[in-house]
Amino acid sequence: MTLKLYVDRLSHPCREVIIFCKLNGIDFEEVHIDLSKRQHLTPEFKEVNPMKQIPAIMDGKIKLSESHAIVKYLACAFPGIADHWYPADLYKRAKVESVLDWHRTNFPRGPGSYVFTSVLAPVYGLRLNPQAASRSEKILIASLAKIESVWLQKKGRFLLGSGQPSIADLSLACEIMPLEALDERDRERILGPFKRVQKWLDDTKNVMAPHFEEVNSILYKFKENLQKQRDQVGSSITQSSRKHYLHSKM
Amino acid sequence: MTLKLYVDRLSHPCREVIIFCKLNGIDFEEVHIDLSKRQHLTPEFKEVNPMKQIPAIMDGKIKLSESHAIVKYLACAFPGIADHWYPADLYKRAKVESVLDWHRTNFPRGPGSYVFTSVLAPVYGLRLNPQAASRSEKILIASLAKIESVWLQKKGRFLLGSGQPSIADLSLACEIMPLEALDERDRERILGPFKRVQKWLDDTKNVMAPHFEEVNSILYKFKENLQKQRDQVGSSITQSSRKHYLHSKM
Repeated sequence: MTLKLYVDRLSHPCREVIIFCKLNGIDFEEVHIDLSKRQHLTPEFKEVNPMKQIPAIMDGKIKLSESHAIVKYLACAFPGIADHWYPADLYKRAKVESVLDWHRTNFPRGPGSYVFTSVLAPVYGLRLNPQAASRSEKILIASLAKIESVWLQKKGRFLLGSGQPSIADLSLACEIMPLEALDERDRERILGPFKRVQKWLDDTKNVMAPHFEEVNSILYKFKENLQKQRDQVGSSITQSSRKHYLHSKM
Repeated sequence: MTLKLYVDRLSHPCREVIIFCKLNGIDFEEVHIDLSKRQHLTPEFKEVNPMKQIPAIMDGKIKLSESHAIVKYLACAFPGIADHWYPADLYKRAKVESVLDWHRTNFPRGPGSYVFTSVLAPVYGLRLNPQAASRSEKILIASLAKIESVWLQKKGRFLLGSGQPSIADLSLACEIMPLEALDERDRERILGPFKRVQKWLDDTKNVMAPHFEEVNSILYKFKENLQKQRDQVGSSITQSSRKHYLHSKM
């Protein structure tokens, strides 16, 4: 029975799971759960994941949610996954777990939240929230500084000084990618000071090509549509027309 | 070389690591890093954990941070740890990972934050913040409802329907324990509606006795001191005298 991924590519933890499967030749069926239509809240989806969150998977009778747990499960359950993704060595694995755990404790109001509150909210019928965006930006900058000075301090191209990426690289890179949906000035203001992070992000894109960029392309489309919208209707656009425009183009 | 735990028992992830060691007969040296004195920000501690956060451990040459990562490492690195804590079985482990990951994504502004912003902040020289407490309470109630209706839905006494606790039980129970520092009315208002959660918390305390209660006793002391303070100086107490009183008694 084919592995089923319940996902919406607008969600970065969903993109993380899809990319991992594609990179490792794991066959799957992609079941689109449209967050903007609240399909994750339906009784049908509750049968898949009673937490009513995506991503979720079904692998035969096995149901699982939460992106980190899913990716670790896939790395262990499917044959032939290269060791560097989730090392069997006790200490190496512990360090990867440490980055993943840090990711969850430090980024919950990070890049995704900043982009959501400063750009993306109208897609979901919500208002932009500059105050929340400002709070998220502070957390985001502090977290990027820690990646720059701690996780990327060693010589290897990837996190923890490794020469090959782990699921921690994949997960953090997917977390940061929503910044690509910002306009250039805003993106540069936030990412500009962090040279190592930028290089690592480029290296990650390259080593995970073409799947990383392909799955994340929804962000570039979003950015393109937003720019067209700005060009066409100027700054006086209302929240409701912006929402309509984005829905019709994505 | 003895395992070193760099901890402050006022921090619940620190208590999680200490309790795990005590429950499993792992010898350790407890190195107190006083958060209220900002000892986690010193250059000496930066050598242990460049993230400047606790808990952190040193096991010989191995340095590790983040409580979930630490506890998983200890469960695998030390001999004779019972399998139920972090099952070797792929699916059982994946489900434990799912709870731990959910914990991190859903609780970051949960019980600890509520208690901090509504009661504990003056210990650290900060003001109480009713607005933040209100935001945290909403997240806390929603998370408790999910534990009640999803993670505790099955027949076993512990999370995921298990008859024995895993590190997910330990971690979530430590997360929720700061609610013990609230006065009875506030505690009952929050935990009262969640009967399964209350029974599970009691079962967890019992199965982890005496270490769970002993390590968490700092919360009861805190509550006792707060009550004495209320009784002695009434409601007109200033922030500064409250801070002084709590520092002198804890």
